[in-house]
Amino acid sequence: MKAEIIAVGTELLLGQVVNTNATFLSEQLASLGIEVYYQTVVGDNPKRLEGLLKLAETRSDLIILCGGLGPTEDDLTKEVVAQHLGESLIQNTEGYKKLLAFFETTQRKMTENNLQQSQIIEGGIPLPNRTGLALGTYYQTEQHAYLLLPGPPSELKPMFVEQARPLLEEKFPSKEKLISKVLRFYGIGESRLVTELKDLIATQINPTIAPYAKPNEVTLRLTVKTKDVHAGNQALQALEEKIQARVGEYFYGYGDNYSLAQAVVDLLKEKGKTVTVAESLTAGAFQSALGDIPGVSTVFSGGFVTYSAETKAKMLGIEPELLEEYGTVSEECAKQMALQARKIVGSDYSVAFTGVAGPDELEGQPAGTVWIAISSEDEVTAKLYHFTKDRSAIRYSAVMQGFDLLRKQLLRKK
Amino acid sequence: MKAEIIAVGTELLLGQVVNTNATFLSEQLASLGIEVYYQTVVGDNPKRLEGLLKLAETRSDLIILCGGLGPTEDDLTKEVVAQHLGESLIQNTEGYKKLLAFFETTQRKMTENNLQQSQIIEGGIPLPNRTGLALGTYYQTEQHAYLLLPGPPSELKPMFVEQARPLLEEKFPSKEKLISKVLRFYGIGESRLVTELKDLIATQINPTIAPYAKPNEVTLRLTVKTKDVHAGNQALQALEEKIQARVGEYFYGYGDNYSLAQAVVDLLKEKGKTVTVAESLTAGAFQSALGDIPGVSTVFSGGFVTYSAETKAKMLGIEPELLEEYGTVSEECAKQMALQARKIVGSDYSVAFTGVAGPDELEGQPAGTVWIAISSEDEVTAKLYHFTKDRSAIRYSAVMQGFDLLRKQLLRKK
Repeated sequence: MKAEIIAVGTELLLGQVVNTNATFLSEQLASLGIEVYYQTVVGDNPKRLEGLLKLAETRSDLIILCGGLGPTEDDLTKEVVAQHLGESLIQNTEGYKKLLAFFETTQRKMTENNLQQSQIIEGGIPLPNRTGLALGTYYQTEQHAYLLLPGPPSELKPMFVEQARPLLEEKFPSKEKLISKVLRFYGIGESRLVTELKDLIATQINPTIAPYAKPNEVTLRLTVKTKDVHAGNQALQALEEKIQARVGEYFYGYGDNYSLAQAVVDLLKEKGKTVTVAESLTAGAFQSALGDIPGVSTVFSGGFVTYSAETKAKMLGIEPELLEEYGTVSEECAKQMALQARKIVGSDYSVAFTGVAGPDELEGQPAGTVWIAISSEDEVTAKLYHFTKDRSAIRYSAVMQGFDLLRKQLLRKK
Repeated sequence: MKAEIIAVGTELLLGQVVNTNATFLSEQLASLGIEVYYQTVVGDNPKRLEGLLKLAETRSDLIILCGGLGPTEDDLTKEVVAQHLGESLIQNTEGYKKLLAFFETTQRKMTENNLQQSQIIEGGIPLPNRTGLALGTYYQTEQHAYLLLPGPPSELKPMFVEQARPLLEEKFPSKEKLISKVLRFYGIGESRLVTELKDLIATQINPTIAPYAKPNEVTLRLTVKTKDVHAGNQALQALEEKIQARVGEYFYGYGDNYSLAQAVVDLLKEKGKTVTVAESLTAGAFQSALGDIPGVSTVFSGGFVTYSAETKAKMLGIEPELLEEYGTVSEECAKQMALQARKIVGSDYSVAFTGVAGPDELEGQPAGTVWIAISSEDEVTAKLYHFTKDRSAIRYSAVMQGFDLLRKQLLRKK
């Protein structure tokens, strides 16, 4: 089973958008045992798209097109593919209802163009769009299968995972399966992780180990190709044990989307504890990351953004004398922020951030200087960090470090 | 002048690496007035790469290959292209010296394979690699030009900018330059914007208008191809005036990276006003967006995250009776949050958010129901919104809407 991915959009050819859809789809197809031999990007040009379709049919069984399902004149993927297949476009009733409902709820004006979004290729299977309006289509001939997906990753990903993937598994059952397991690490750089596991990475053929660096964390994807799911899982387990024995202290969880914030919220729930936060340079970023986790209200009820010395005094009741004596970027200030926030809110734990986001220095301290304090019923501790890169990276690093500190504190407590 | 980009690497086809090189090169080529019609990714497979080269020669003048110049067995781009062109690979003296020096300095053992890195295609121009070891090559025939670049973005980018770009400008002097201007809009969907400008978009050839939808905003890129920079800028100006006359009420700023938060901070600074914030469902996301703007401390000194009814009472002093009577997701609660936050912090303006982020409903109201209140010395107003999609999108939509409300309030005030 050979597949190729065609992304349609002039914005890709102008370098305005990165083609992350091809990456996502390639990874998904690999896990289905479907081999991707080509990824292509073409502009919003009917003739060139038609040419690519003909070429793709000479070399691939499954042709996946993404982008160009929207409401504008540029969006022509559906029309070109339908014409190429000798089919018409038809309105899909469910999609049309959703379109009408959307414009009614949002009180926006629907235009003629929007009707394109709820059309599919006649004879194809409609793929509902849970996070948007443009329907996808799956269409199969004797020789080829065609999958049309929307361009925005926020629509393409759920549509692929929830609609297209089960369909492909049903239509093209694979004898060999790829089973993957993703291990997530915080506090160790990619090059150091790879060095620690060098011999394992070099000698492992099945399962394989693929390291991947994200800002402030590294993941390892272990992948086994197997006909026997049980044996495959055992091989992954054995490999993971070897890895954990070497770098387990940095490991915090499994899976592609498991965040450090989620790990902290899970631990708080497990232990029946609550947390509050006082943020200076991070200015709400830590609390916002908590707020992204569904059901966080059982462990987090609110906190403070005290960006200036004045609000640190006003909102947290920190003595102006303390701020004058030690400065706001100090161990003393961080600890007082944590203590006061915990006291006011009445939570089990608190985390406080104070430091210099940059680009300019503050109180004679360079950008990247950050104190993070954690307070619990037993103690209050603070640590000093020197983060690098730009303002945004410094703030993000501080937030991640705060989550890691709290996670370790929670793990120490029985 | 037509170009295409071929990225070579099985890791791209497995979805382990995102093809950011294609994006970078496309943007660079666009600014040189060179049109990119195709981007392709192919694996480390000589036959398929050779096939792609033949295809590329039928449709492009300039063929850029990236990746596959390294020392491993997989790295075969140079060999395949040389063979295709009927040329040999030869050692480049400068590159060889650099290779030797590197292994001496790092005291690592040089392998036979490493010698590949300092080879170039005979008859080609060597492109030194400032940040790595693998040399690039520029090779020109009567019909075509070939540019071979290394895969790691940290090597490709400086090599392109410092070596290849000047070479391309010299070999293919473009009489015409591309000048772009990006207009940013909030509060109007892509389809509606396009409908309002339908005739302009359809008839405009030079300058062109390219709409692009991002979450919660739309940008229009106006691009003119011109020999005369002054005349080009005038044409852009004239086109912009037509656009502003129709959809100017939704326009908020210029450029690829100008955020709505930045626009608000700029306005606050211009008017010498300050703001505070009280966030429930957004849980710090609005304040964190403010915190991302350098120098925000002159207009923002801090605010509140009151996620529960309890913290709304405790931190903002909202009467529990009000919350009981109207609920936390109510106009009254939003207004009280704004009023109290502004009073406590002593700022000129305040913004407050209360609503249902989901996935579950709250107080009988569905996910997406959000009240946003703005308070100033003159008045307090609140508006009800029904945002859609998932938790994360609902929170982000609320934040963007909050910025837009505050921006409009600031524009109304002299």
